[in-house]
Amino acid sequence: MPAGELMYPPDQEIKEAEEGEEGWVWTQIKTEARRDAEAEPALASYLYSTILSHSSLERSLSFHLGNKLCSSTLLSTLLYDLFLNALSSDANIRSATVADLRAAHVRDPACVSFSHCLLNYKGFLACQAHRVAHKLWTQSRRPLALALHSRVSDVFAVDIHPAARIGKGILFDHATGVVVGETAVIGNNVSILHHVTLGGTGKVGGDRHPKIGDGVLIGAGATILGNVRIGEGAKIGAGSVVLIDVPPRTTAVGNPARLVGGKERPAKHEDVPGESMDHTSFISEWSDYII
Amino acid sequence: MPAGELMYPPDQEIKEAEEGEEGWVWTQIKTEARRDAEAEPALASYLYSTILSHSSLERSLSFHLGNKLCSSTLLSTLLYDLFLNALSSDANIRSATVADLRAAHVRDPACVSFSHCLLNYKGFLACQAHRVAHKLWTQSRRPLALALHSRVSDVFAVDIHPAARIGKGILFDHATGVVVGETAVIGNNVSILHHVTLGGTGKVGGDRHPKIGDGVLIGAGATILGNVRIGEGAKIGAGSVVLIDVPPRTTAVGNPARLVGGKERPAKHEDVPGESMDHTSFISEWSDYII
Amino acid sequence: MPAGELMYPPDQEIKEAEEGEEGWVWTQIKTEARRDAEAEPALASYLYSTILSHSSLERSLSFHLGNKLCSSTLLSTLLYDLFLNALSSDANIRSATVADLRAAHVRDPACVSFSHCLLNYKGFLACQAHRVAHKLWTQSRRPLALALHSRVSDVFAVDIHPAARIGKGILFDHATGVVVGETAVIGNNVSILHHVTLGGTGKVGGDRHPKIGDGVLIGAGATILGNVRIGEGAKIGAGSVVLIDVPPRTTAVGNPARLVGGKERPAKHEDVPGESMDHTSFISEWSDYII
Amino acid sequence: MPAGELMYPPDQEIKEAEEGEEGWVWTQIKTEARRDAEAEPALASYLYSTILSHSSLERSLSFHLGNKLCSSTLLSTLLYDLFLNALSSDANIRSATVADLRAAHVRDPACVSFSHCLLNYKGFLACQAHRVAHKLWTQSRRPLALALHSRVSDVFAVDIHPAARIGKGILFDHATGVVVGETAVIGNNVSILHHVTLGGTGKVGGDRHPKIGDGVLIGAGATILGNVRIGEGAKIGAGSVVLIDVPPRTTAVGNPARLVGGKERPAKHEDVPGESMDHTSFISEWSDYII
Amino acid sequence: MPAGELMYPPDQEIKEAEEGEEGWVWTQIKTEARRDAEAEPALASYLYSTILSHSSLERSLSFHLGNKLCSSTLLSTLLYDLFLNALSSDANIRSATVADLRAAHVRDPACVSFSHCLLNYKGFLACQAHRVAHKLWTQSRRPLALALHSRVSDVFAVDIHPAARIGKGILFDHATGVVVGETAVIGNNVSILHHVTLGGTGKVGGDRHPKIGDGVLIGAGATILGNVRIGEGAKIGAGSVVLIDVPPRTTAVGNPARLVGGKERPAKHEDVPGESMDHTSFISEWSDYII
Amino acid sequence: MPAGELMYPPDQEIKEAEEGEEGWVWTQIKTEARRDAEAEPALASYLYSTILSHSSLERSLSFHLGNKLCSSTLLSTLLYDLFLNALSSDANIRSATVADLRAAHVRDPACVSFSHCLLNYKGFLACQAHRVAHKLWTQSRRPLALALHSRVSDVFAVDIHPAARIGKGILFDHATGVVVGETAVIGNNVSILHHVTLGGTGKVGGDRHPKIGDGVLIGAGATILGNVRIGEGAKIGAGSVVLIDVPPRTTAVGNPARLVGGKERPAKHEDVPGESMDHTSFISEWSDYII
Repeated sequence: MPAGELMYPPDQEIKEAEEGEEGWVWTQIKTEARRDAEAEPALASYLYSTILSHSSLERSLSFHLGNKLCSSTLLSTLLYDLFLNALSSDANIRSATVADLRAAHVRDPACVSFSHCLLNYKGFLACQAHRVAHKLWTQSRRPLALALHSRVSDVFAVDIHPAARIGKGILFDHATGVVVGETAVIGNNVSILHHVTLGGTGKVGGDRHPKIGDGVLIGAGATILGNVRIGEGAKIGAGSVVLIDVPPRTTAVGNPARLVGGKERPAKHEDVPGESMDHTSFISEWSDYII
Repeated sequence: MPAGELMYPPDQEIKEAEEGEEGWVWTQIKTEARRDAEAEPALASYLYSTILSHSSLERSLSFHLGNKLCSSTLLSTLLYDLFLNALSSDANIRSATVADLRAAHVRDPACVSFSHCLLNYKGFLACQAHRVAHKLWTQSRRPLALALHSRVSDVFAVDIHPAARIGKGILFDHATGVVVGETAVIGNNVSILHHVTLGGTGKVGGDRHPKIGDGVLIGAGATILGNVRIGEGAKIGAGSVVLIDVPPRTTAVGNPARLVGGKERPAKHEDVPGESMDHTSFISEWSDYII
Repeated sequence: MPAGELMYPPDQEIKEAEEGEEGWVWTQIKTEARRDAEAEPALASYLYSTILSHSSLERSLSFHLGNKLCSSTLLSTLLYDLFLNALSSDANIRSATVADLRAAHVRDPACVSFSHCLLNYKGFLACQAHRVAHKLWTQSRRPLALALHSRVSDVFAVDIHPAARIGKGILFDHATGVVVGETAVIGNNVSILHHVTLGGTGKVGGDRHPKIGDGVLIGAGATILGNVRIGEGAKIGAGSVVLIDVPPRTTAVGNPARLVGGKERPAKHEDVPGESMDHTSFISEWSDYII
Repeated sequence: MPAGELMYPPDQEIKEAEEGEEGWVWTQIKTEARRDAEAEPALASYLYSTILSHSSLERSLSFHLGNKLCSSTLLSTLLYDLFLNALSSDANIRSATVADLRAAHVRDPACVSFSHCLLNYKGFLACQAHRVAHKLWTQSRRPLALALHSRVSDVFAVDIHPAARIGKGILFDHATGVVVGETAVIGNNVSILHHVTLGGTGKVGGDRHPKIGDGVLIGAGATILGNVRIGEGAKIGAGSVVLIDVPPRTTAVGNPARLVGGKERPAKHEDVPGESMDHTSFISEWSDYII
Repeated sequence: MPAGELMYPPDQEIKEAEEGEEGWVWTQIKTEARRDAEAEPALASYLYSTILSHSSLERSLSFHLGNKLCSSTLLSTLLYDLFLNALSSDANIRSATVADLRAAHVRDPACVSFSHCLLNYKGFLACQAHRVAHKLWTQSRRPLALALHSRVSDVFAVDIHPAARIGKGILFDHATGVVVGETAVIGNNVSILHHVTLGGTGKVGGDRHPKIGDGVLIGAGATILGNVRIGEGAKIGAGSVVLIDVPPRTTAVGNPARLVGGKERPAKHEDVPGESMDHTSFISEWSDYII
Repeated sequence: MPAGELMYPPDQEIKEAEEGEEGWVWTQIKTEARRDAEAEPALASYLYSTILSHSSLERSLSFHLGNKLCSSTLLSTLLYDLFLNALSSDANIRSATVADLRAAHVRDPACVSFSHCLLNYKGFLACQAHRVAHKLWTQSRRPLALALHSRVSDVFAVDIHPAARIGKGILFDHATGVVVGETAVIGNNVSILHHVTLGGTGKVGGDRHPKIGDGVLIGAGATILGNVRIGEGAKIGAGSVVLIDVPPRTTAVGNPARLVGGKERPAKHEDVPGESMDHTSFISEWSDYII
């Protein structure tokens, strides 16, 4: 799938394919939570209220987000209703949620369980809230989408504009400080570390933010500006500043960013960095530049 | 105005000049809020409590900040009182608030309305809270100023020391992670992106933080350290690390930062980057360094 | 002490040595708070509830953390109990807390008092909460440790994995955006600025995060990735990206980072940067690279 | 209908008959709330959050009860869910709610509107919460029913055992201090003032509380104890203590209660006191006893 | 003053007469609070937030009522504003507040200080909230007045219709369960115990509630119904049910109530029972009726 | 034990005798809570936070009271600490708590379990909070005792002066509206229904409230005024107004109260009404007076 063209299959198809998936993950989550509640009475109340008292993943997630994002002027019951309505009626969001849970579980060695991700990963929670805000945005309920956006930015320090389009199987690892602009597009199976910026170029509107291809890995603190295309399977080194296109399956590092292997014949890797999460294997090739 | 010398006109003068301005913006905000409340019943309660039930911009802003920044040990009523007293009695702060609203509206293409900025922009809100904390600081109410500072850092992840002096027409865009040190000075019409640091140089006190001239634009993640002077209308590229002075209307990029066009004869631009928000036009000149 | 080998003396020994220390600091804190409460009635209620109504530093800190970190699903009484139990029973944590308070007081010129640090420094508070979470982790109460970790990341935007080992006399200055990974180790008397990442290298588990020696100073926004060793007394410049070992008492700067003085014969400094907090004295040697 | 035999028609029948009724009342409520929100900006937020943002009476009521009855250990989202599920699935409760709203509107001259009753009448709100608690009780979800019972007793000072059976068109006027025991039954169109007790007789279980017939009026502070029968259309004077049966359409007054007109040939009235709310017309006959 | 005719002197006159009074009481309250804060650190935070941080009695009371009466849908800042506006602009209410404080202090032997009454007496607090609600009612802000009325009834279990007119120097002792109807009038220097009802007679509107003369004492649980006149200085025994007029300076007891001394030549007392609080001196005359 | 002379055995003795008792009841409570949590997931979080996460009855009760009685100005952590300190250090209070739990369980047929009483009985909770407030009172911490008293009166509508002395095995059934004055004394094994007043006689201080002997039963709405003695095992009918002494094991009914059987040779009963809870067996003798 070309970056920028997120084509969702029709809801019905997804429903048939994913229902078992969703059910299986939810069963895992409940099993984990029950085990933890038994082992740790001090946490049992929390686990029952957030997970074990609910009849489905969408109810649990709606409850958790409602309580995380509420404020004295945006009540938890209102947010709970909003999330539950969106999640119940949209199989695409639900299947993306499941894919995101799987992504964290597979890619992050510090992720000990699905329930750990569901309850504690601010990147996961911010992303699911974004999915609902994005749905509101596309339904022209923009002030509500922006209010949600603002709460997510306050509570999680993750700032994803509700208009941004985001694929499935996304891992926002650590997530603090991530900024994703209005016309940015993120493909499937992308991994993005904390402090990453997908930013614009100025005060003119229009299509002005990066397009991130499938399977891309963006290291901590990388800044990508403008309507540039990061090719599928590319890798952006931590702290890089990227202002022009990066070809597929190449690695860009440094500030300003350079392609590992050189501009003309950059080194190409075979793996999908967004999934393999290999942040540093380019060091051997990059070693001339460092220390 | 030279950076570091924020000279405010006397209150009375400002009052005469700005009252219409303030009234006009407030009327806009109420109109926008009323329109949104009608279109979106789920948000109407929020819009009434934050905007439509109030008789002035300063009351609305005091209410909103009081509810955003309160905690179980710093009650909203106390903060509301504090903000309202400061805003009511200080026309300079009020006119700066209006200038900041205008700055977001003009410079940020994602800013759809004044009310959007007033309610949702953590950079705007953190800056207004800072203006009040700064006033307390200058009145020698330092423990209270620091308590406020701490709440802003917790809630918005924006860390502006209450002693820092900040001009008018400031846009803190996205704002997460901004750090502004004790002796920093920021001129008028400056735009500062998220993760920007205006930091000190060590453990010795005294004047040790940057002075940012009028009309400067500082890109995301830029770090400026020490009592250095960023000349008026200069542009600091995203991710740059700046440790020495940058001349007016030049562009510094990279880590360590270099002047675009070279140290000896740097390229000079005509526009005011803090207002034009042009982040990336230097790419053509910088392209040798990248990818 | 070699980085990675935090050897605590037995509790009893510490108790004898540090009790006077702890008592002295607590007396200072109460004196400061009483002075501020008298000078600022608007803050007196806050100072009494957080400090003056408590009989010990550990009770005050437990109360403050409980109220800062609680949520609608993790009640303050539960957290207060948890912190108080951990702090009361562990003299090591208490002496580390005192050393951290002293570190902020001595090294940060903006730190006006011990009570200022205790109440307002999110880096200090996040670090103490981490000490308790780490204790839970070593007691195999991992889900609880992770829940605490998550609250600290939400509330303070400081993300320290509960398994990370951290010495005493630590200053997390400003602290927003700090990420410390699961197998990271931080020695004693280290100073770490905001946005610093001590990150991993991929999705494989095992020992994969940096080891930071005693007395190291890490500048704002620096990213250190992988199981690399930052030698004691080394200095990492702001915004640096470090992927391989840094020798003791040398300075690494830039992205990619280079040793000041060159890879072969790097300049060595005498002072302990983690304590002297000298961020920028290398500029003269680094000036070729900049502007 | 004999007291003690509350026979509900099948759900379907009610649905057909009452839907228009429910819709009509809901339309009235929204109209009233919109009028009040326009006239009183200070109340608009409250009216939007409680009424105008909701799509049905059952949602508005569930939201309002959830927020009124929640506590730090019983969250509003949980209660909202509970109420909404019960109200959505039980047309009998919904039609009783509507009948209760009408009862307050018709019988209480201080009731200025349906929305006034919905938002402000603790007797009305306690009664609706009881209807849901009673449903839970009959579904053998007794601990939950009792927890709800306890919250209603704390918040509204209205103590109705969840096992008690209550008809439709009930007005609990003022309501503070009402106590209704486990085996009590209240018919239709009954009006009960504050401080009324329908109590038991001792520590033996079984059927031990009063049965109140249709159309009964029970004055403020009246105490009725034991499995006695208050005949349809009877009137119990304020402050009366009743320990034996009261025949239909008679009036019992005093402590101990006597029948107006005498035990043998008591005076009979034609009107339905539970609807006419005539508290004091018996004074002429009772005047020998007073002042 | 005849019951039912509360004639307030013009604001200006009161201001001159009472300012010293108000200032003196406020000084007493602060002195008491400071003494208690010093003696009891656990309460100091509470005393500072409610009393010692405020610059006037009206601010302290507004803060306290705002925090007592707020809910998740009626925020404390809104209520604080409402109370402060009303109290600041109405010298009559302020002088009534002071007179009520004095009444509790003089008449209730369990009232240990003015601050005790200000903070802890629900009867006092409910009465002051009523004074503000009544002001709103007379300004035709009826929905807001009724919302306030409802909160007072929920929080304090004191139910005073906002239209009821109440004099100065009122003691609602214990106060739980008090109900005062829409057209009731209470004179000056009246003392009313808990569970007292001043109720109506039916569903017809109009003037239908009791008129209580100056200096009346109404014992616990007394019920007075209808547009009857309780003459100045009369005493109503605990648990009495009164349905017709009671002459001045007489005592009515029992259910139904009788005049002590007989209907024709009732005993007259010289003292003012509303001030002397003599509840039981009539026992000698009543003893024939009891035990 | 004569009413008015509550003689507690020394702490040590009680400890030995009651520890098994306390442990046994706590085990029952946990068993019940575990059963209910399994049967009702919606309540499990509540049961874990209030009971199952705690290691002792005193911790569970302290947590529950702290969360019930806290307000925005009296934080739950402060109250939790206060209750836990008092309960941990006073075996007398703990044994009284257990006796009260047993009393509710044995005497109230609507009490389905110990945990039901612990969580839901406002009379039980108010009484335990009173026991702690009374302890504070006797320690001359009167402002704190009165603040607690006020919270109990607000939250539970139960108003027991902290100076009042109360024995063990007390059942406050329903409890709303109970008022117990400063110098009142309540013996052991007493049962008191809702709306009962043990009130004073005027504005003179000193010993002015009732003394209730062991085993007394006081019916709903009864008012007992003055320093009168209700003999052990006496029964006071619902709604009675009692102003003079009542002999042991007799029954007083009516307003004004008379002795059943006549003043000269009142009927004496054998049972202990405070335990048998027989409210109405006197009807046969009283029937001449009614209906």
